[in-house]
Amino acid sequence: MSIIAPLKGTLDMGFEALRAAYQSQRFTPAELMSDIRERAKAYESHNIWIHLLSEKEQAVWLEALQDKDPASHPLWGIPFAIKDNIDLAGIPTTAACPEFAYTPSESAQVVQQLIDAGAIPVGKTNLDQFATGLNGTRSPYGACHNAFDFDYLSGGSSAGSAVAVALGLASFSLGTDTAGSGRVPACFNNLIGVKPSIGLLSTTGLVPACRSLDCITLFTYNTDDANIALAVAEGFDPRDGYSRHNPFSNQARQYGLRQGQLTVGVIPPSQLKFFGDEQYAQAYQETLQKLADAGFEFKDIDYAPFDEIAKLLYEGPWVSERYIAAQPLIDTNPEAVFPVVREIIAPGGKPPATDYFKAQYRIKDLQQVCLAQLAEVDCLLTPTAGRHFTIEEMLAEPIKRNSELGYYTNFMNLIDLASIAVPTQFTQQGMPFGITLVGPSFSDRMLLSIANRIQQALPLPKGALAENATPNTSSPVGNATTIDVAVCGAHLEGQPLNWQLVERGATLKQKTFSAPVYRLYALAGGPPMRPGMSYDKQNGTAIEVEVWSVPCTEFGSFVAGIPAPLGIGKLQLEDGSFVSGFICEGYALEDAKDITEFGGWRAYLES
Amino acid sequence: MSIIAPLKGTLDMGFEALRAAYQSQRFTPAELMSDIRERAKAYESHNIWIHLLSEKEQAVWLEALQDKDPASHPLWGIPFAIKDNIDLAGIPTTAACPEFAYTPSESAQVVQQLIDAGAIPVGKTNLDQFATGLNGTRSPYGACHNAFDFDYLSGGSSAGSAVAVALGLASFSLGTDTAGSGRVPACFNNLIGVKPSIGLLSTTGLVPACRSLDCITLFTYNTDDANIALAVAEGFDPRDGYSRHNPFSNQARQYGLRQGQLTVGVIPPSQLKFFGDEQYAQAYQETLQKLADAGFEFKDIDYAPFDEIAKLLYEGPWVSERYIAAQPLIDTNPEAVFPVVREIIAPGGKPPATDYFKAQYRIKDLQQVCLAQLAEVDCLLTPTAGRHFTIEEMLAEPIKRNSELGYYTNFMNLIDLASIAVPTQFTQQGMPFGITLVGPSFSDRMLLSIANRIQQALPLPKGALAENATPNTSSPVGNATTIDVAVCGAHLEGQPLNWQLVERGATLKQKTFSAPVYRLYALAGGPPMRPGMSYDKQNGTAIEVEVWSVPCTEFGSFVAGIPAPLGIGKLQLEDGSFVSGFICEGYALEDAKDITEFGGWRAYLES
Repeated sequence: MSIIAPLKGTLDMGFEALRAAYQSQRFTPAELMSDIRERAKAYESHNIWIHLLSEKEQAVWLEALQDKDPASHPLWGIPFAIKDNIDLAGIPTTAACPEFAYTPSESAQVVQQLIDAGAIPVGKTNLDQFATGLNGTRSPYGACHNAFDFDYLSGGSSAGSAVAVALGLASFSLGTDTAGSGRVPACFNNLIGVKPSIGLLSTTGLVPACRSLDCITLFTYNTDDANIALAVAEGFDPRDGYSRHNPFSNQARQYGLRQGQLTVGVIPPSQLKFFGDEQYAQAYQETLQKLADAGFEFKDIDYAPFDEIAKLLYEGPWVSERYIAAQPLIDTNPEAVFPVVREIIAPGGKPPATDYFKAQYRIKDLQQVCLAQLAEVDCLLTPTAGRHFTIEEMLAEPIKRNSELGYYTNFMNLIDLASIAVPTQFTQQGMPFGITLVGPSFSDRMLLSIANRIQQALPLPKGALAENATPNTSSPVGNATTIDVAVCGAHLEGQPLNWQLVERGATLKQKTFSAPVYRLYALAGGPPMRPGMSYDKQNGTAIEVEVWSVPCTEFGSFVAGIPAPLGIGKLQLEDGSFVSGFICEGYALEDAKDITEFGGWRAYLES
Repeated sequence: MSIIAPLKGTLDMGFEALRAAYQSQRFTPAELMSDIRERAKAYESHNIWIHLLSEKEQAVWLEALQDKDPASHPLWGIPFAIKDNIDLAGIPTTAACPEFAYTPSESAQVVQQLIDAGAIPVGKTNLDQFATGLNGTRSPYGACHNAFDFDYLSGGSSAGSAVAVALGLASFSLGTDTAGSGRVPACFNNLIGVKPSIGLLSTTGLVPACRSLDCITLFTYNTDDANIALAVAEGFDPRDGYSRHNPFSNQARQYGLRQGQLTVGVIPPSQLKFFGDEQYAQAYQETLQKLADAGFEFKDIDYAPFDEIAKLLYEGPWVSERYIAAQPLIDTNPEAVFPVVREIIAPGGKPPATDYFKAQYRIKDLQQVCLAQLAEVDCLLTPTAGRHFTIEEMLAEPIKRNSELGYYTNFMNLIDLASIAVPTQFTQQGMPFGITLVGPSFSDRMLLSIANRIQQALPLPKGALAENATPNTSSPVGNATTIDVAVCGAHLEGQPLNWQLVERGATLKQKTFSAPVYRLYALAGGPPMRPGMSYDKQNGTAIEVEVWSVPCTEFGSFVAGIPAPLGIGKLQLEDGSFVSGFICEGYALEDAKDITEFGGWRAYLES
């Protein structure tokens, strides 16, 4: 018995909706999983799955949920799909090559972290073999079909992972991304695609494509879900040589929705390529217009250095990495490798190390040029793909078309950037279109906050479902280390010194009142005019304050910038708690005007 | 006419001594340069210089000093030597290969920065050709001879740069370091050798050895001079693809001398190698004993992963980088290359890129193991070299001996570490011996502060000169962004909350008094007992305070940890300046005891 009919858009698969459904006991995780299996039948010809898990195979994780408190397990009962080049214990990993398959005894580190947080694997998804492709057709399990139009590319190589989420067969999924495999399918299926910084998510348990560049990625409906899944999936793993500590993880760089003006780098018209796709060309222009209307400003950047880097990925010595990964099979059983994949990988044994070093020198030089450009904008924004080909068009020219699909994506990992693919609209023809936001390594959260703002401004449905994907959250998500500071005067929102908080990445946490134990004074001097609060247990009253969360590392300079007689001490809030807050030296109150009766600085100014 | 006779140790060439000499007009920079040229004659057979600058060649920089204020030019009139694989405008760069030579029109970025800060180039120094060697004998300009014993190796490849400083022909010098070239010569000539993090000093204008690993290095007499020269020499350079922003440059990680217990990783006896050098083996044990007496604690680390990495440098595909650098010459005129250097470099065209990637995967895995070990200690400490060979011993087995010289050095740049070679004593035979401190990238300043502590504990002369090298400074040097905070109570040195400053890397800047406008109170409550200062222009007095410099990024958490009624505002010091400092809410003074008469918290506690 199915909870819902196997039709698009009749069950909200977003995290929040599922949590609510579980909490209200509308259905159980086991019922949802059974329902997903039922619904999946309608999409068999899409070639989404290499291995859809049976009820029996799923049982162990569903049973484990009983010992997990939903409150402390952020992914409790959330179904997710796994690209079949990532290990799930006990289930074969094929990398879309049956002759390559092995059955791992351990799950990939990222998969394990997700399961530990309560997520439930749905199955292993189809991909371009050995993750070699951006299109989704290069698989002996059949070409994967787009969630919106059966004739169109799913995108790849993380093909099935994207289509599964778009069709509501999983709430999120794991892909991988070396050249664009985590972004192109997001664009073609109306999803968020998180291509994290190299080393942010462990690659232990991933079949390598280019091991020095590979990233595990996330597909989600919106940035809320992406932030939650990313927080669970990320983390340093000493078993992965390329794993890195996130320098911002303890430094509160978990930006919320930025309030200020955003300046976004864009590619000038002469360097844009849509490869004959008028629909995509038009959608891109419309998207820019909508973002301009939403307050985004644009600044042209020079795309030439990015493009030069991109070309090196498939034309240069990085193919040697793919060769290393597939070498045992290519040497002993070349017929087992999908023809176009073999054509790409087989020459990888030939380039000399000198070719690698020469290419790397050039890339490092170009990287400086690219990073200098990124430093002048909040992020770079490009189309995610220039054209959405039909499967037929793709198969007619498989190498050339794939190279065109990578025009906006191939440079990313070679110069260690982070990126987020964001759906922005549908084409006139009704197909999804999206853009990619690009920033330096470890700008992942910042990019997600910009993506959040875009999703707020351009409402779209969740994948191919009917429900709205607009995120609800506009506050920071994650384990930020911030310091809460109560402000009562010139630092209040809209007041003349508020920028001192905003420029430090601070976010407004709460509009509230102090405990009723303070008197408020207008200090002599200014501009800006400033109030002082003074503790007075007997004759005090509640004063209007705002609590701002300031990144820990930025708080010191904020404090140091405060002139006498003010300073930062502790202030008691209405709820009895103490937070950092403005205090005032006693001597300054002697010449000050008691304005306690107004109950707050804003009311006094208005009087 | 010479200022001093051409004998060792009769002129103090340290920065401070020269600054004092210039200030007191004992001699001018031009007179010093002329004197150096005179003294250099005595060491001609040491083969230190490839090009010692003439009076005429130096004139332009000496003249430029007239427009530079010594107060704002930290290297005003300080003579320095340049390894001859680093460009000095208008002077040939040979890399110790006459057939390779070219005359650059621009100085290397680092050289230019030093000159801009007032430093005066003395000449271009001899090296192992193309920086390929750790011994100093591989040069058509003749083997370079040790500053202490003519029969012994100078060490290399930065051979002449080290010997020049040791013999007082320059106050500091530039070397380079790919495999150990900036450390081994420091050890053999009783000098500090700074091997900075890759990318901290620009390599624009450096003849590459392995371009992905090369570092420009500094030889100095002590850590004071090293800190000053490093602050001038470092800095991001967008023209250098491998240049990196120092993540700590604006974050005040310019540690001064740490006061607390230091735990240093050491190699267990079974993994130590001295290659038959009993003198060095004994010196190493004596050094550890002296450091233990000075309060250092030791913890064994496993050297096997470091050693495995080290072997990959010359046995692996990194030779391809050397081949790229020398290829035009090797292809067209192989006889122009020094025989043993040719033997090493010529095969570098052969390894395939797959060899590179396989080696790099292994290195990244081993790097995690090494970094995990480093994370458990303040730094790693190794002998800088296991044996000091005579030139004769070296020439008898040039490849094997060189490999032995690199046992403790070759791994460093392959896993992106910083290191400082520190002289610690003389052997029984009277030859210099030293150790190397090792830490993660960008720990350069922290390592220098540990080296400072070692130089304070183990006094030695400056190179081969008579003067003592012990640094005078134990406070941070450089362009740190710290916040000064005045403390007056429990945070004073030796008081119960002082650790809150120390654990944040804060250093004591000044013991002083407040302006005479404060009253001091002993607050109710505790422990710990705490004072409060209250501004009182009429009846105030000067209160004893200490000013501590707190890293900007750490100051916020310090402030947030202060309970009511205290806080951080602004405090006026004796000299009239305002710094961040403890203030107290007025209400708390009502129950407090006025202790102004004691003039300070310590005096009150003692009463």
